[in-house]
Amino acid sequence: MTANDRLSIIPLGGVNEIGKNMYVIQCGDDLVVVDCGSKFPDESLLGIDVIIPDITYLIENESSVRGLVVTHGHEDHIGGIPYIIKQLNMPIYATRLTLGLIKAKLKEHGLLSSTKLHQIDAQSEIALGQLPVSFFSTNHSIPDCLGVVFHTPQGTIVHTGDFKFDLTPVNNQYADIHKMAEIGKNGVLALLSESTNAERPGFTPSERLVGANIHDAFTRAEGMIYITTFASNVHRLQQIIDAAAKTNRKVTLAGRSMVNVVDIASRLGYLTVPQSILVEADEANKYKRDEMVVLCTGSQGEPMAALGRIASGNHRQFGVSPGDTVIFASSPIPGNERNVARIVDNLFEKKARVIYGAGSNTGMHVSGHASQEELKLMLTLMKPQYFIPIHGEYRMLHLHQLLAESVGVEASNIFILNNGDVVDFAGSEAFQERNVPNGDTYVDGLGIGDVGNIVLRDRKVLSADGILIIVITFGKGENKIISGPDIISRGFVFAKESEGLMDEVSRITLQVMEQRLETKLHRPWGLYKREVKEAVGNFLYAKTKRRPMILPIIIQV
Amino acid sequence: MTANDRLSIIPLGGVNEIGKNMYVIQCGDDLVVVDCGSKFPDESLLGIDVIIPDITYLIENESSVRGLVVTHGHEDHIGGIPYIIKQLNMPIYATRLTLGLIKAKLKEHGLLSSTKLHQIDAQSEIALGQLPVSFFSTNHSIPDCLGVVFHTPQGTIVHTGDFKFDLTPVNNQYADIHKMAEIGKNGVLALLSESTNAERPGFTPSERLVGANIHDAFTRAEGMIYITTFASNVHRLQQIIDAAAKTNRKVTLAGRSMVNVVDIASRLGYLTVPQSILVEADEANKYKRDEMVVLCTGSQGEPMAALGRIASGNHRQFGVSPGDTVIFASSPIPGNERNVARIVDNLFEKKARVIYGAGSNTGMHVSGHASQEELKLMLTLMKPQYFIPIHGEYRMLHLHQLLAESVGVEASNIFILNNGDVVDFAGSEAFQERNVPNGDTYVDGLGIGDVGNIVLRDRKVLSADGILIIVITFGKGENKIISGPDIISRGFVFAKESEGLMDEVSRITLQVMEQRLETKLHRPWGLYKREVKEAVGNFLYAKTKRRPMILPIIIQV
Repeated sequence: MTANDRLSIIPLGGVNEIGKNMYVIQCGDDLVVVDCGSKFPDESLLGIDVIIPDITYLIENESSVRGLVVTHGHEDHIGGIPYIIKQLNMPIYATRLTLGLIKAKLKEHGLLSSTKLHQIDAQSEIALGQLPVSFFSTNHSIPDCLGVVFHTPQGTIVHTGDFKFDLTPVNNQYADIHKMAEIGKNGVLALLSESTNAERPGFTPSERLVGANIHDAFTRAEGMIYITTFASNVHRLQQIIDAAAKTNRKVTLAGRSMVNVVDIASRLGYLTVPQSILVEADEANKYKRDEMVVLCTGSQGEPMAALGRIASGNHRQFGVSPGDTVIFASSPIPGNERNVARIVDNLFEKKARVIYGAGSNTGMHVSGHASQEELKLMLTLMKPQYFIPIHGEYRMLHLHQLLAESVGVEASNIFILNNGDVVDFAGSEAFQERNVPNGDTYVDGLGIGDVGNIVLRDRKVLSADGILIIVITFGKGENKIISGPDIISRGFVFAKESEGLMDEVSRITLQVMEQRLETKLHRPWGLYKREVKEAVGNFLYAKTKRRPMILPIIIQV
Repeated sequence: MTANDRLSIIPLGGVNEIGKNMYVIQCGDDLVVVDCGSKFPDESLLGIDVIIPDITYLIENESSVRGLVVTHGHEDHIGGIPYIIKQLNMPIYATRLTLGLIKAKLKEHGLLSSTKLHQIDAQSEIALGQLPVSFFSTNHSIPDCLGVVFHTPQGTIVHTGDFKFDLTPVNNQYADIHKMAEIGKNGVLALLSESTNAERPGFTPSERLVGANIHDAFTRAEGMIYITTFASNVHRLQQIIDAAAKTNRKVTLAGRSMVNVVDIASRLGYLTVPQSILVEADEANKYKRDEMVVLCTGSQGEPMAALGRIASGNHRQFGVSPGDTVIFASSPIPGNERNVARIVDNLFEKKARVIYGAGSNTGMHVSGHASQEELKLMLTLMKPQYFIPIHGEYRMLHLHQLLAESVGVEASNIFILNNGDVVDFAGSEAFQERNVPNGDTYVDGLGIGDVGNIVLRDRKVLSADGILIIVITFGKGENKIISGPDIISRGFVFAKESEGLMDEVSRITLQVMEQRLETKLHRPWGLYKREVKEAVGNFLYAKTKRRPMILPIIIQV
């Protein structure tokens, strides 16, 4: 295989996880990146703000990198961009709304002027280096989403992006099912298709269903209406605004991301806001409670987002009165149930009516991702020779594989990959035998990748039982303790409640150190430190069943 | 009101929360405690093992305390017993199985011989001091559950314990609906009823449904069967053992709590294990894979429980082969979804068939708590004059109140309480005007209540950004720095990756300290420490957007 007929597919993020999507298509000397997402850390990654893909492989192949194609504007597809662009600048290709959201991020990080941005749409046909790339439109929970088609000499590679089939979409933004059929008819060498809802049977309901239910709820509501959803779900926002208009209510916005998205989306024409329906938050009190809808952030129960502060009575402009209606036009993402529940508790205490729970029960939310029948429809349309399920944790990829087999893809032609695994093509034969550097890069404050396992392990120990610092000062040259042991604890236990304990720690420390004084053996200080750590650690564990970090500090003067 | 006609109801734990149930009935000079549960800490309570009720009020009224009545053997009703008994010994009244589980706990804490235990059953009629107490049997997800009836001079107080109405119970352990009807007919002054499932419409399905589905799944299974459920769900264990017997499989146990409960429950006659069906784990390999059922702990995705270790390939005796069936006879408790998902991922990677998800979808689990129609049935049977919804977070109590109103309880006669709130009765008039000490007592290792807010706040700071310790030694008397600043960090960032940063911290510290040297002002050392903390903190935040704990230590020699 020469460099010229080289064709490889490499996920650098997004398989065996939900988040930090990044896929590489390498064809001849051209390397194209699809998406550049971020992921939220789980609670074991103490202090980490966000996780992005490790792009060592891209940096090693910098001269081949032709650009970044972005399928849509969700955080798990664009959230890594400012951090990655700092490491490797590359031109970005995306649709108008997606670019609008990316620009806001680049601006915040001072990278807007130094990054080349190219606006495309579903009809665009571009060449990235020698590689022709085209697109098709899909439905999802944000407008302007793309599937991506790579026309390589070996055959066509299709990346679906995130999708569902919404046959009655809001704003009539149809998925281009005819173009998909044509692509499939012409032959697809490999399909990369998203797997988020591979566990869900059936067909995801249309977004329009939510609009009808929201309208009904608005009709029945008596006081103020608070309604929360993901700010990026522009079609949902449109339906909420439409329902407000039909029920003669004004709309005001609460929460920074809600204000930002409504601003960007209405400026770019994705959101139609009828004349004079939008009211500034500070002016809302000019209207009666039953004339207002407050569209809030905080659908996942974030205590500091708008709805969280409204529910706890800590919002500057809005409060809940008995009889107000609060609607969660959302489902809690697994892990967020308890935060959402806290907010519902607060709202009930203020005697609000609250519509909450899973979207499938309340009808106030539908997923943006394809369920099993839609995944099978995509596989049937594309008829791929090879199939790579992407965008999901292992069980989703596994179930997506079973769906693919059920519609006729050969089991041996399906690759469930780890991040970094390379699928190479020789002619139209695919095989998976090698991998490239990959992993999670942690962002903590301004640091990208400087927090590693040792730091995290220390944070873990500190978080569970705190720290005990033992300072002891030796006279230089002579073996004499001239100060200490001084014992300082943080996060362990109050010194005043445990004076006896600290006296004992002091005694144990001296016992170890006195060996040195007595024997005048000049063993390295590190050995004494280790002995103090062990002796004090064992003593404290026996007395308290706790294991604080023990940090002996020996000063020589 | 004299002490003699005094009647009060006080929750010390269990309202506005799920967990640490403890309710006090005080009648004349007799104080009776119902239940003594524990609660798991949420992730913000770093390092805390378990939470129990604050029993200051019981200790203040020690001479009136007649005993602890325990409704059933779940952790949220018995988990606090060993810790509370250490603070206040009192006789315990419970049914045979519940006592068996309590004894195991007391033994572990060395308290068995010093605690008075009284076995009761649903027919018992006892007097606690002057107060007659009787009971009625209920259905729940553990056998031998009680409702409690207090026959006070002012009227009858009923505490339901945890319950559902299972009209086709396993082992024919019927709830005594006739006795409940009689109690209600004779008049109930106040009802305390549990609210766990007040958010769920309908009627909770019978446990028998699960048995039928487990049997069907066993019939279809080909390889080894792993099945996991809560160990304390003895009726579920019985149905699993029965299904194994009918499908000619042996059963073995994996996990300490599974072994303990099967031992206690079969010894006491609550579990009928057919001759020779139970096989030691070490002997399981004598049987073919399709002749075995492994009954495991780990239904909530605990990585170190039996199923977690089996799934990750780290169990001493058991491993998963392709085609094995794994059944979650459980629903993930909110917050545990991600841990369960990790285990399913591992099982799919090993090519197992896995039945998982919410019990309402899989049919492999039903709740042990009454849904809305059953709560209304209990309210209808009891016809209470006053109603206190207990055992639930605020939204559950609130919805339970609405249910009570819907079946005719007067809204003004319903009390939604906080822990510590006292409902006092004067004659048959109830009012809520005062409260008693209450709260969460944290258990950390061997310490009960010694970890407070300052320690937790320190752990929080340490967990997010670590600690930076700055040690500086001054010569005594003279204003001269003779050693340092030495800078040590843990959980912040590697020193080697940030030498420049540490040099700067050193310089800033010296700058502050040199004021002292120059002015020879003997301001208190604490002021200098505070200044170092501030200057270094601001510098590090500007450079890193992180806020480690900064701990200046000044040694004088």
